[in-house]
Amino acid sequence: MARWQPAPAQRLSAAALDLFIEQGYENTTIPQIAERAGLTKSTFFRHFPDKREVLFGDGALSQLLHDAIVDASPAASPLQAVAAGLDVLGVLTFTADIRTSSSRRQAVIAAHTELREREALKATGLVAAMTAALQERGIGGLTASLAAELGALAMKITLERWIDPANTEDFNNIAHRTLQEIRTATTALR
Amino acid sequence: MARWQPAPAQRLSAAALDLFIEQGYENTTIPQIAERAGLTKSTFFRHFPDKREVLFGDGALSQLLHDAIVDASPAASPLQAVAAGLDVLGVLTFTADIRTSSSRRQAVIAAHTELREREALKATGLVAAMTAALQERGIGGLTASLAAELGALAMKITLERWIDPANTEDFNNIAHRTLQEIRTATTALR
Repeated sequence: MARWQPAPAQRLSAAALDLFIEQGYENTTIPQIAERAGLTKSTFFRHFPDKREVLFGDGALSQLLHDAIVDASPAASPLQAVAAGLDVLGVLTFTADIRTSSSRRQAVIAAHTELREREALKATGLVAAMTAALQERGIGGLTASLAAELGALAMKITLERWIDPANTEDFNNIAHRTLQEIRTATTALR
Repeated sequence: MARWQPAPAQRLSAAALDLFIEQGYENTTIPQIAERAGLTKSTFFRHFPDKREVLFGDGALSQLLHDAIVDASPAASPLQAVAAGLDVLGVLTFTADIRTSSSRRQAVIAAHTELREREALKATGLVAAMTAALQERGIGGLTASLAAELGALAMKITLERWIDPANTEDFNNIAHRTLQEIRTATTALR
């Protein structure tokens, strides 16, 4: 029997990230990514519509956030529900073993406008998923949008802090602290 | 003497929007846009790097917002400074005469992922410009980021309300009301 291997989408993403760093994003082709992952080009296209997408998930992050916010304690405030969403990401997605590759991935994205565009669109998808989840909790439109935007800001700052080479804290600790700082900052806005 | 005409960039944008609506975004080429505007392809490329960019400004919006926030009354709170920024956009950019074309432009963007991506990246540019302006006012990092995100949310909601065919209010009235609603909603977040 073959030894255990990650799922094809993860193998393709890891192979792509390695190649982008080794030889540059522009110089890397989809056949090269498939070959490095030990898969075919048609397998690539079953998982990703284009080269950019290989650095982004398949919407799993949005789904996780959405479900965790919907399932948060009924007594949770909008921001507490968002915190529950970030907690789940810290447990299931942004785990210690992917911190280094997350940092490398972020550096590749930052260096390419077309990847930054894709990332910006994905961020609006995360905000939409959080807004929808908060609305399912019965939270009014503008409050839901606002809590979702603050959740996205918290996630962005938390990720920056988490992938910092000097950081030793886990994602969840940083997320809690960041959300608390954002809560405090809202009082200084008026 | 030739009669007065808008600047080349504006003529190209207007021609592009007309063609995108008449014959579809995908079916429209850069030479067609230039021809419709009575200009050459090389003039197009002096103003815009690609077909997508013709629907977006040259950073003028970011600059206007930035300068208006920096120049707001020294006594203004972070959100009041952001409000001053939106006021300037209402006076100089989102004027009654472009409301219909703004609405048509938004419909074209919404229908194309690659335009929505470009728009999402432009939105992060607006947030960055507002954050930098607030920091120049001496406002601390997280409060500045937060006020800028709320400003971007206010602008997005204001634009949606302003281009609604049923709307009769001007941009500035809607912006004031929207910011006030956002202020109120921040108290319901905890």
